[in-house]
Amino acid sequence: MLGFLVPTERKFFPMFEASTANLVKMSAVLIELVHSDSPERRKALTKQIEDLEHEGDKITHETLNELSSTFITPFDREDIHSLTSVLDDIADFIHGASKRMDLYKLDVFTPEIIKLSELIDKSVSEVHVAVKGLGSLKNKREEVKGALVKIKNLEKNADDVFDLAIAHLFENEKDPIRLIKLKEILHILETATDKCEDVADVIKGILIKYA
Amino acid sequence: MLGFLVPTERKFFPMFEASTANLVKMSAVLIELVHSDSPERRKALTKQIEDLEHEGDKITHETLNELSSTFITPFDREDIHSLTSVLDDIADFIHGASKRMDLYKLDVFTPEIIKLSELIDKSVSEVHVAVKGLGSLKNKREEVKGALVKIKNLEKNADDVFDLAIAHLFENEKDPIRLIKLKEILHILETATDKCEDVADVIKGILIKYA
Amino acid sequence: MLGFLVPTERKFFPMFEASTANLVKMSAVLIELVHSDSPERRKALTKQIEDLEHEGDKITHETLNELSSTFITPFDREDIHSLTSVLDDIADFIHGASKRMDLYKLDVFTPEIIKLSELIDKSVSEVHVAVKGLGSLKNKREEVKGALVKIKNLEKNADDVFDLAIAHLFENEKDPIRLIKLKEILHILETATDKCEDVADVIKGILIKYA
Repeated sequence: MLGFLVPTERKFFPMFEASTANLVKMSAVLIELVHSDSPERRKALTKQIEDLEHEGDKITHETLNELSSTFITPFDREDIHSLTSVLDDIADFIHGASKRMDLYKLDVFTPEIIKLSELIDKSVSEVHVAVKGLGSLKNKREEVKGALVKIKNLEKNADDVFDLAIAHLFENEKDPIRLIKLKEILHILETATDKCEDVADVIKGILIKYA
Repeated sequence: MLGFLVPTERKFFPMFEASTANLVKMSAVLIELVHSDSPERRKALTKQIEDLEHEGDKITHETLNELSSTFITPFDREDIHSLTSVLDDIADFIHGASKRMDLYKLDVFTPEIIKLSELIDKSVSEVHVAVKGLGSLKNKREEVKGALVKIKNLEKNADDVFDLAIAHLFENEKDPIRLIKLKEILHILETATDKCEDVADVIKGILIKYA
Repeated sequence: MLGFLVPTERKFFPMFEASTANLVKMSAVLIELVHSDSPERRKALTKQIEDLEHEGDKITHETLNELSSTFITPFDREDIHSLTSVLDDIADFIHGASKRMDLYKLDVFTPEIIKLSELIDKSVSEVHVAVKGLGSLKNKREEVKGALVKIKNLEKNADDVFDLAIAHLFENEKDPIRLIKLKEILHILETATDKCEDVADVIKGILIKYA
């Protein structure tokens, strides 16, 4: 009986929330990772991020399968598809950064790596707020809009941090192999904040359509 | 009264044209930038490209907002979406190249960087011609087709210039850090011409559908 | 008369098969290339891959043109579009790898480059099996599913090979310019297997819709 009262299309909202809750966990582990001095602890944290990324993959696949087999969706199919993929991208980039740190045996994290990790963490929290609000736009529209503005600003901030970090790196790092390592990690971290902005763009589009 | 006579769907054409007119300006500044000997002038030109890129971003967002709230479109929604995004990508890559030149404190531009910038400029002009023709395909179909052929050829040309530049770089540049800088800038410039080709592909698809 | 009996929508299947048959040829040439000691032979093989890539481009364009002008399609238009593009991407990455090997004048291929090339070859064979099955899902659904599982596993395998190769490279390669070359080629090869996985995802989506 209840199944009839709860429209099937509503089942997408808990899936999106599970996805962003998972991202919140991932970025918290990333923060601990870039602050850790212990190689063993870093190994364990890297493993945690990897496990969370697999968790996220499962949620992504379930959401896309659901989408393939659901006729009525709460908003445009392509928006659900985009939102799902971009949330998955954020997880991939957080995971990619931690994997590179491990593969490259980085043991000292530059202030810019720490700063970018913090910006990812803040941005992911706002992504979580915006996505949670999607299920009850009637009451939460302003809250969602506020989160989108914050995500945009955090991305701009990350852009500036990245640009300065790269300029600084090319001016000061004389070891080309270390330069390659740091440049790539900075780039992956900055791209994670770009992906948060992509989420904000998808959600903004949804807000306009359902004004 | 007039509002009734001008179909709302026609408003996309001036938006596309504004976007490509902006690209024409950007690539003209890029040409001046790679020919300039003065660090101050280069700073000013880099800033101009950045401002134009923000201008382009605004046009992109307006077009996508319009698309979200418009029911009848002059051609398939996904084509309008693709065209808008790829025009935005061209701006991003021109801007990205100038930003890297600045961050990396490049003061001498290799002949290949100049050559690729010129190919971008030519390609962007043809993109402008093709996009302007979209609004009056009845009279301009042949002109649009001609522009698409030119864009394809310019991209092939850019590919060859890029390949030779990379081979030359790896053979001659013994400073790995300078090699990294030049390789990245060459790659961004070449990608800008790829994006012009992507525009040509989208427009070709539109021509086939509205044959 | 026969034309009436063969629905026009069926014409997509031979196109997809032509595309994957072409990939099977390309990856076979790649395998020969990474095992060859002769610079002349390698030049010839690189040229063969380039020619096959042009062949693939033609198939891609024909398929997309067909899609633009066909009203009834065997499955969702966006799935046909995605499948066509991702098959094209695989060709681009195989071609890109061989082109870089040539431009960078690589004459010794590391065991990891050979291993990744073999994984591409195996993965492309499964892509061919999966795509061939699409035209007769009634009888071949299980065969298609089996191929998708194999593609997923091959991609995971390639990921592990890549990660180890990168860690090994950064630990052992002291020449930064050679490191840049090898890192890029490894990355392109690994991305080719990612693209095979993308094909598997598109086909999985089709299987769910037509369960």
